[in-house]
Amino acid sequence: MQLQQTSCGDHLQKYSTARVLHWSCMMAGGRSLDTIAATCVITLCLTCLHVTSLKSQLFTRLGEQRSTTEPPISYKTLYFAQKIDHFGFLQDGTFKQRYLVADKHWHQPDGPILFYTGNEGDITWFCNNTGFMWEVAEQLGAMLVFAEHRYYGESLPFGQASYSDSKHLNYLTSEQALADFAVLIENLKSTIPGARNSPVIAIGGSYGGMLSAWFRMKYPNIVIGALAASAPIWQFPDMVPCGDFYKVVTQDFAKSGDNCDANIRRSWKAINNLSSSASGLQWLSEEFSLCTPLKNNNDAVSFKSWLQETWVNLAMVDYPYEANFLQPLPAWPIQVVCKYLNFNSTVSDYQLLQGVAQAAKVYYNYTGNSPCLNTSQTATGSLGALGWFFQACTEMVMPMCTDGVQDMFEPEEWNFQAFSDECNSVFGVRPRADWAGTVYGGKKIGSHSNIIFSNGGLDPWSAGGVTSNITQSLVSILIPDGAHHLDLRYSNKLDPPSVRDARALELKYFQKWIRQAQKSTGTRPSISKNWKMFT
Amino acid sequence: MQLQQTSCGDHLQKYSTARVLHWSCMMAGGRSLDTIAATCVITLCLTCLHVTSLKSQLFTRLGEQRSTTEPPISYKTLYFAQKIDHFGFLQDGTFKQRYLVADKHWHQPDGPILFYTGNEGDITWFCNNTGFMWEVAEQLGAMLVFAEHRYYGESLPFGQASYSDSKHLNYLTSEQALADFAVLIENLKSTIPGARNSPVIAIGGSYGGMLSAWFRMKYPNIVIGALAASAPIWQFPDMVPCGDFYKVVTQDFAKSGDNCDANIRRSWKAINNLSSSASGLQWLSEEFSLCTPLKNNNDAVSFKSWLQETWVNLAMVDYPYEANFLQPLPAWPIQVVCKYLNFNSTVSDYQLLQGVAQAAKVYYNYTGNSPCLNTSQTATGSLGALGWFFQACTEMVMPMCTDGVQDMFEPEEWNFQAFSDECNSVFGVRPRADWAGTVYGGKKIGSHSNIIFSNGGLDPWSAGGVTSNITQSLVSILIPDGAHHLDLRYSNKLDPPSVRDARALELKYFQKWIRQAQKSTGTRPSISKNWKMFT
Repeated sequence: MQLQQTSCGDHLQKYSTARVLHWSCMMAGGRSLDTIAATCVITLCLTCLHVTSLKSQLFTRLGEQRSTTEPPISYKTLYFAQKIDHFGFLQDGTFKQRYLVADKHWHQPDGPILFYTGNEGDITWFCNNTGFMWEVAEQLGAMLVFAEHRYYGESLPFGQASYSDSKHLNYLTSEQALADFAVLIENLKSTIPGARNSPVIAIGGSYGGMLSAWFRMKYPNIVIGALAASAPIWQFPDMVPCGDFYKVVTQDFAKSGDNCDANIRRSWKAINNLSSSASGLQWLSEEFSLCTPLKNNNDAVSFKSWLQETWVNLAMVDYPYEANFLQPLPAWPIQVVCKYLNFNSTVSDYQLLQGVAQAAKVYYNYTGNSPCLNTSQTATGSLGALGWFFQACTEMVMPMCTDGVQDMFEPEEWNFQAFSDECNSVFGVRPRADWAGTVYGGKKIGSHSNIIFSNGGLDPWSAGGVTSNITQSLVSILIPDGAHHLDLRYSNKLDPPSVRDARALELKYFQKWIRQAQKSTGTRPSISKNWKMFT
Repeated sequence: MQLQQTSCGDHLQKYSTARVLHWSCMMAGGRSLDTIAATCVITLCLTCLHVTSLKSQLFTRLGEQRSTTEPPISYKTLYFAQKIDHFGFLQDGTFKQRYLVADKHWHQPDGPILFYTGNEGDITWFCNNTGFMWEVAEQLGAMLVFAEHRYYGESLPFGQASYSDSKHLNYLTSEQALADFAVLIENLKSTIPGARNSPVIAIGGSYGGMLSAWFRMKYPNIVIGALAASAPIWQFPDMVPCGDFYKVVTQDFAKSGDNCDANIRRSWKAINNLSSSASGLQWLSEEFSLCTPLKNNNDAVSFKSWLQETWVNLAMVDYPYEANFLQPLPAWPIQVVCKYLNFNSTVSDYQLLQGVAQAAKVYYNYTGNSPCLNTSQTATGSLGALGWFFQACTEMVMPMCTDGVQDMFEPEEWNFQAFSDECNSVFGVRPRADWAGTVYGGKKIGSHSNIIFSNGGLDPWSAGGVTSNITQSLVSILIPDGAHHLDLRYSNKLDPPSVRDARALELKYFQKWIRQAQKSTGTRPSISKNWKMFT
């Protein structure tokens, strides 16, 4: 069963998603969250900037496909009985946390372990799409472990009931996930022969990168260092301006073609103009080859959100080579998009939107195989989406806003109270705006050590990232030509030098940390014959 | 209503307390924990080494009285609406956390804050008994804040129902307490004019010292450093030998008088010999002036536990001057006790136990006002005791054991499984032996900074403490002549030079941290005119 397309009221437009509205209505009707997850998430009308952006982050990772030219990978799939609640003792049950192990190149005893701190999705996706780890495993003589984040993929604390209500969702927090990782590593080191003194390095991208950084901060006894790729650990209240994310998106378009950002900025008014009449809506529907024609103003609001999300997604995946993410895309896709958006200011609404339609089709129909564009198609039925929304509604409060001046989007303020009310309606929980800053340190993280924060200059998430060195061992690596965690991907002949340098430097830090750890524990260096390549 | 004296079965003697047995029986009978707290805790027969020791730790702090010669102190009593659950969002309720503030000497703006991380009891006790903070406040121009630990004193998350069952006790963990402290400090800094840039130093003793160390480890964004006085952060499984605690107790007696430890070691067999007959039990009861005569072997087991706890308590409070703890005591009380225990090995059981009785009366009747000795009198009706037992039954798993050779006690092994079973019977929870090590780092804490671990050479808790420098900023301060957190007490003319030196050094570290913090934030140093005394 699928829900009908939602109509978003104007009063919601300023702060919420129709997805949230949908859930709200469904909850009020007594339907459970897992029903929502199965049906609602494919019928979105997105108007909430911050949630839109987070969703994009999620989908980007979830939708990625491995290229067939990449080397085959092999791993064991294992399960660990993990406590459902690490921070209370009444709930003493366990669930099976999935983790993947690849030890082909591991030098035992005491060879290092690269540990991927799984984020909001199926761990096999992250395993398949973090080529960097596979490429350095041999050089480091390292074991690879990919640990699934609770409530995602197969690691469901209460099985199919995990998303049934907020009571079952109560153990979905980053703190619990970090504790999972810590307990799992302690178990691996005590049960795998030769692993007891193995230094462990945390690696993650996006939310997984935030987790890897926080993991090193909170459990330096467990991991000797962390690579936090494209990790917006400062995308929280009062840490960075809420508009910076969309500024980066806009800059990507501005530098990819003449007038590109200006024409997108103008497109919203053009859409508003056309959507005020039935004929205009029909024209838009036909010009964009929409599968479901726009019928009213609310549809137009959804349509604009869908377009906005499209530009955000493009900014995140603006890679220098053909790649297959949510959609197959050409190399430097924004440059291709912008070829359709180079009008001067005298262009009519119709001409402008014809260009926008062509641009959108670069993203949605690069292969030419899509008969029509589905404005809900960036959504997915994965449970991961619902899980991430719960996290956004609890501790992952990431303010976003636009002003239409420094960015190319319609102005929209950040409204925490309204967001909180929506979360309360949907999940029966309220976000705690300040908690992430309190528990993870915000800008006051200088006393920690051995964390690499890598960020791509094209990636909007860099706006909430650490982009300058904090100390000698809390370092920033910038990849000016990089989009979202390009450094974690398989190497490619079209990679810009900046990402090659970044990966080499990351490897050097790994080696340095490993040497430090082996020196302190007195274990012999377990150095692969390829080690010398990078020292 | 009071319960009758418990009779402990032999099978329990090896691992449990009659207190636990009591609770177990009462729970089976359907009585609630708060009823138990109010009645059961005063009718103990203690045979469990580890629990006995923890209880002593608690009682030592709770029972302390301020000397009338100390300067009067003045503070405001305030309350903060604290989340009941920091690590889940379903339970969104708050409770009133009590905290005390003394800002008489505070130099605003930006003067430092000394923050006492309250432990398992009424915060006013800790406030009254941490003279060191009051003495250095003026020198540092510091505000003093004493924060009560949740579930103790007045800071009850569910009011009188807080101890009613394990569901209500579920939020009694050290992690929640640390989060309370973090959130409270963030609130104080944002609401008290002039406090926004105030550097905060955590200070605590015993369990409170563990909390202050862990607080700096987990929230270095909140506190610039910590003084962890007599904090046994390594008294957890596989970190230190389980017998070291009782070795220190024994050493205290060994060096306080000829044959003192040897005679206590021999006393257990003598008691066993006498308690095998009714006449022997009667003789013991009369010789020790027991309020309740011993009637059977189980009573004798309780009696021995009571004596053992007495010797432990004496080791903790072996201060160089008269003090009024659980009992009023002379200066160097163990030396006084040992005067009655200097027999050679030819002494008879009766002579030996006459000496033991005299020794016990030093502890229980130094004033001469006690008509009889109550073998349950070291217990207290405070809720704190029950709370600490819950913590011991969850994450504060501190193995203790004796062998009768390297210590002066009857041999008793550490039996985790039996302990776990008891906890499950009483509270419906099971302790997690490895969790504290995982979450707080165990021996792998070298990457942290700015923590002073002070330990007294006479204090049995030093066995689980950090007694050598780990790094330049994780430092150990030893006070060879000091008992349990002597350095936190008011200065006294009879203080040994080692504790005077310790306090001066602690103050120097405080000043160093404050300078570092003020340098990094660019705030002006808020230095009192007395600052120069210590630099």
